[in-house]
Order: sequence, then structure tokens, then C-alpha cells
Amino acid sequence: MLRVNENYLKLPGSYLFSKIGKKVSAYAQANPGKEIIRLGIGDVTQPLAGAIIEAMHRAVDEMGSPETFRGYAPDLGYEFLRNAIVKNDYEARGCQICADEIFVSDGAKSDSANIQELFAGDCKIAVCDPVYPVYVDSNVMAGRTGTYEEQTGMWSDVIYMPCVMENQFVPEFPKETPDVIYLCLPNNPTGTTITKSQLQEWVDYANKNGALIVYDGAYEAYISREEVAHSIYECEGARTCAIELKSFSKNAGFTGVRLGYTVVPKELKFGKASLHDMWARRHGTKYNGAPYIIQRAGEAVYSDAGKKQLKEQVAYYMNNASVIYDGLKKAGYTVFGGVDAPYIWLKTPEGMSSWDFFDYLLERANVVGTPGSGFGPSGEGYFRLTAFGSFENTRAALERIQGL
Amino acid sequence: MLRVNENYLKLPGSYLFSKIGKKVSAYAQANPGKEIIRLGIGDVTQPLAGAIIEAMHRAVDEMGSPETFRGYAPDLGYEFLRNAIVKNDYEARGCQICADEIFVSDGAKSDSANIQELFAGDCKIAVCDPVYPVYVDSNVMAGRTGTYEEQTGMWSDVIYMPCVMENQFVPEFPKETPDVIYLCLPNNPTGTTITKSQLQEWVDYANKNGALIVYDGAYEAYISREEVAHSIYECEGARTCAIELKSFSKNAGFTGVRLGYTVVPKELKFGKASLHDMWARRHGTKYNGAPYIIQRAGEAVYSDAGKKQLKEQVAYYMNNASVIYDGLKKAGYTVFGGVDAPYIWLKTPEGMSSWDFFDYLLERANVVGTPGSGFGPSGEGYFRLTAFGSFENTRAALERIQGL
Repeated sequence: MLRVNENYLKLPGSYLFSKIGKKVSAYAQANPGKEIIRLGIGDVTQPLAGAIIEAMHRAVDEMGSPETFRGYAPDLGYEFLRNAIVKNDYEARGCQICADEIFVSDGAKSDSANIQELFAGDCKIAVCDPVYPVYVDSNVMAGRTGTYEEQTGMWSDVIYMPCVMENQFVPEFPKETPDVIYLCLPNNPTGTTITKSQLQEWVDYANKNGALIVYDGAYEAYISREEVAHSIYECEGARTCAIELKSFSKNAGFTGVRLGYTVVPKELKFGKASLHDMWARRHGTKYNGAPYIIQRAGEAVYSDAGKKQLKEQVAYYMNNASVIYDGLKKAGYTVFGGVDAPYIWLKTPEGMSSWDFFDYLLERANVVGTPGSGFGPSGEGYFRLTAFGSFENTRAALERIQGL
Repeated sequence: MLRVNENYLKLPGSYLFSKIGKKVSAYAQANPGKEIIRLGIGDVTQPLAGAIIEAMHRAVDEMGSPETFRGYAPDLGYEFLRNAIVKNDYEARGCQICADEIFVSDGAKSDSANIQELFAGDCKIAVCDPVYPVYVDSNVMAGRTGTYEEQTGMWSDVIYMPCVMENQFVPEFPKETPDVIYLCLPNNPTGTTITKSQLQEWVDYANKNGALIVYDGAYEAYISREEVAHSIYECEGARTCAIELKSFSKNAGFTGVRLGYTVVPKELKFGKASLHDMWARRHGTKYNGAPYIIQRAGEAVYSDAGKKQLKEQVAYYMNNASVIYDGLKKAGYTVFGGVDAPYIWLKTPEGMSSWDFFDYLLERANVVGTPGSGFGPSGEGYFRLTAFGSFENTRAALERIQGL
């Protein structure tokens, strides 16, 4: 008789954003007159840039003609897209990355969840706390995390690196040496980041310990300060210890378009095994490529017109970030993030729990945010707001919060 | 230090179609003048139907306007698509399937590879032999298949159900009872299928033994005979033992568009665990939905115009199937399939091995097919040709083969 993967049954509750979605739906149904403003899930609201729309129309037409129709895409993704990525995201920053080290995918969420398949079952992972839930949950499903401790909200075999007010949200080298270190910088959910020289220390640490860094750079486009690296490959030695995940969701508004890529350098070898070859094998066996139309949309992100339009889009969201940051400050909150990232991280007032503050904000201001504790135990007592709403909604939300 | 998932290293050679691709490229480079006809990989060649192109243009425009822009899709897929699937693929055939049992994805390849994550590590899988390589390879990667025996080309812990000339390519109940049974019907690669009453026997067998059937219906649109079921849910009791995978690649030419869905009925419980809930959790945690534009393309498949256009497209390919079938017969080959499926399966002449015949056909006729042995040990001595080429190429290929 079929036995199921029992690790799935260890997962407490549902995926964070599904839970929020259900809570908000229930409130909306019970209060039909209320106008709810969503600054919770990191979903963008601005339409796609004109250059991207044009590129997709052209690609759709190509698919309708026998001369230009495209079937299965190449395993790693189309060269036109991988070349554009290499040129703009790496060569332009002095990073040595080849086109055949780029693996195009349907987004960083899938890749960040799937990458753990390459690791042995007894590898120990380290995560920042709070953290994007997918890193931990995907390892739970694979049985790599031990048991869940209700009391602490922690998994017995996960190494947590608390990122809290007291250490300026900068992860510290853990006592126990991990095999895999997940770093998301600029960070989701705290909206904070570290400098290039601090990142170099992590690269050195990983190389020294034979650990792998899974570097999630989904928010790279929001970096404003000079001293922050846009890619981990700006650090010396990263090619022997780091995989980089990139998304088009936040820099180009592709949350509903679905495109991302993962960089696996060829030097990434552990024992006899090449992670590059293993990931290539996974890609070829379990995946069939991102749609041609969507890969053309990705290419347009790197066109001159696309770059200009997306710079404006990022500026639009970063203006929202300022509105939230300043508005919360004015309302007396303790606030972080929002400078190199589209997320604002606030301390809940008067020792309120994160979920209590969620309910408070939903019911009193009809504003949806994300409870910090949903991202890990050290997120308790914090709350995340995103800058991805419209300017009008963002301003309205802050007015409501200030009026509480 | 990071240890890798050693199961990956057990995989012999590369993914079948990557290997074929490389062989063909090498031949083409060495023989620049030759015009190669590809009837190997099951990739379609006809452009997308007009109704689908129109739907995608509309959806692209929606993504460019603030009022109609869409971000993250609902976890299971958009309701407009799931409702169309339920109505057309299930209700119309008298099958009871609800919209919240449909999980929209980027294709049946991903789903057929990912579904095994729900099973315990020691579950025993049974596959037809020959078989679509992804079922076995994805289980190898998860460590569920034991060791590979070079001599036989078989995995020690996999139950093989030979489908050969001698049993009319109909799988027989294996001696050892499996926990999971993969069935692809109409079959890839043999192009053969079984009747609804034969399928009912498999459903009864699975229910009796507490086994799960993973039913891959990717080629359903090519069924021509009355007595063949279009869905496993036409069989009584399938809701308690079967998951169905469906693809838009072959019925609508979406190999480069990427869309599929998986049906997981709510009755599918093993012990305390609901496979429906587990798959929902996987979908929510590791995946972020198919692109909005692509889901609208899927909806158009079920429009009146779409249905009409795709019926013609399927007829076009099935005419190719006849050309191949009849042409091979005339050339003296022993041939199967091609009636309810777009694949033609032939016995190699004079006891030639499958790969020898591949080289022979590539070098002598400049025609690319797929070696039967690439699909499993019982495929040795067989060869697959696909009907997905253009009519002109298909006819030319058969003329060349007849001229050998």
C-alpha cells in the first residue's frame, strides 16, 4: 500500500501567504463595505513596461506563424536571454559568469525550493531568522530539518541566525558550522542588507568551511547605496561557494509573468560532484523551460527602452517605501528597511504579537501587512509592509495608520 | 562540508533527448549540406491556432494596463481555466471532478517528475517498459529505485511491466505488488493503448492493493477508437486510486508555451494523509503558478473557435501518422501505434539494435527518430517516429526511408 512522505505532515499550518489570503477573504466577506488596502504579500501592482508588452506581442505573433513558431526551448533557456543576462547583470559589474552557467526558470520561488534536491539528506542548513518561508519549508518536505518544536517555533536540525534590532539585522556566523547557508540580500522580510565587505566575509567563511551559499538576489534592483553588492560574484572566491538566484518579479513586475534564473558556476564542486552538472540534469529531467513568449519579455527587460522604463518603476515603488517609512516614523513606530529594498520592517507597538498587530491593522485600518512571526521565531514582535502598492493606496494606508 | 545527493550520480548518461540533440548537432556540423528531418523528440511544428493567438494578445494588453494587470495567480490556477477544464474534459464525459481538484501547472513533465515527492522513500514504483524516461529518472533522483544494473539496463527496485509485440503492448499485473503504478495511455513511446474495460481492471487492481495510479493522459486528444477511455475517471472507483496528468503540449501545440494540469481527487487518502492536501501544499510552497497570459491561452483551447481549429490540427498530425504507418509498412517494416496516438513504433530490421538503427537512419536517410532502448530495456530493437513534423517533411522522410 502507498505510504506518503511523512515529512509533509510535519509542516505546521499552511503556507504563510495562503493563511493571510484566507484571513483577509474572511474579513472582506464579513465586512462587505470596507475598502481593504493590501500591503502584505510582495505582489507588484504597476502594469508591465511598454517595451515588455511590445516584445510579448511580437513573440505571440511569431508563435502564430509556421516560419517562426517555437516548440520546446533549449534546456538552459534561449541564448538571447542568457546572453543579455550575462552582459547586463554580470559583465557590467565585472563578474565572470558564462551564458552556460545561467539556468532560466519560471521564477526564483521554484528554484529556491528545488535547489535543496541537490544536497544529501543529512546536510545541515542555516537560515536567517526571520526568513522567506520557502527555504525552510522545502527542506522540511525533504526531511532535512528534524522535528518542529511548537514552543519555540523552531526546527531541531535547522541552524537559525537571528537578524534583529540588536545586531542591526546582520546575520552572525553560527556556532555550529552549516553545510548550506541561505542568504537573501537585500533581505526579505526585513528590508535591510549588508555591505559588500560584510558579504565578502560570508564568502570567505563558506570557502573555509566547504559550505555552499544559496544567495537569493531577488531584490537587487532596489539597492541604492554604493557599498552594497548587486551580485555575490562581486566578491572574490564566490564562484567556488555560491549559487545565485534571481527573479524578474520585483525589478520588472513579473509576479504574474513568471521568469527567473539561477547561476551555478562550473567551479562549484563538492567531492567528485559538480553542482552545475547536477542542476543541468535536474533542469533537463524535471523541467521543460520557460515559455518562449516570456523569455522574450525577459530579453526586453535589458533593452534600452526597457531599462529606462523599469528604472522609473523601481523609483515609483521606492517612493512608496519612503512614504511608508516616513509615515510610520511620524506615527511613532520604530522602523527599518526601505532604503535598499521595497520592504519596511516595523516593531509592533507595546509588545503586541505579530498576529495581534495583523488583526489590529486589518480591523482598525483595513490594511493588510505580514506578521513578522510568519517568517520565523525572531520575527515575532515585528511586522512587514511592502512598497508594491499603488502610490494612492500607500498614501491612504499610511493616513489610516497615522489616524489610529 | 556540503555532501551532494548521491542518487543523482547513479543516473547513467544524460537525459535521452539531450543525448539525441547532441548526436544530431554533431552530425549536422560534420555534414553541413545535409537536410535533416526531425521525427525524434515529440515536438510539434504547427503554429498555434488563431483563437489562442488572439487570446494571448488580449491578455498581453491586459498586463499593460493598470486596471487589468495581474500579479501572482491563485495557487491552483485561475478559475476561468479550471472551470473550462472541468466542463470540457470531465463533465462532458460524465466524470465527477471539481474545479478545486484541478491544479494548473507549467506542464505534465514537471508534474510527472514532482508527483513522487508525495510518496515515502521506500515506496515501490511500477512502470511500463518501454516508458517515458521522466517517471523513472525522477524516482532515481529521490533514491527510490535501488541500483542500476548495467547488464540489463534495469534498476533493482523498480518493477518493470514489459510492453512488447508478444503481449500487444498491454501491461500485465506484475508479480510483485507495487505501491505506485505509472500508466501513460495512449502510450508514449509505443503509440498503442488499451480499452476502457482493460483500464477498469487496472483501477480495480489498484483499489484492491491500496496502490496509486499516476495516469498520464498527455496524448488523449489523439484517441480515435470508441472503446478507449479519454480519462481514467471514466472508470468506476478511479477517484480513490488515481491521479491524472494532462498536458496542452500535444492537443494544442503548447510545447513552447508550457501549460498542463494535474487532477488530485479529494478521496485520495492513504492512512491519515490526503494526497490532495499534500499536493496543494507543494503547489503553494514550491511553485508560483503558470503565467496569466498562458492560462488565458489555455482557456482559448476550450473556446468554440479553439476547439474547431485544434481538431483540424490533431487531424493534420494524425494524417502524418498514417503516412508514416503506411509508408513503413510498404517498406517492409513491422509497425505499431499511430491509431490512437501520434507515435509510430517500429521493429528495427534484421535484429539491429535501437541505437544502430538511429545512426543508420540519421546517416543514410538524414531522418532523426528515437531509439526504443532509450525508453527502457524492453524497447531494445524498437524505434519511435513521431507524427509531429510538417506533412511535407513527413512525406519526404518516408520517401527517403522507402528508398534505402
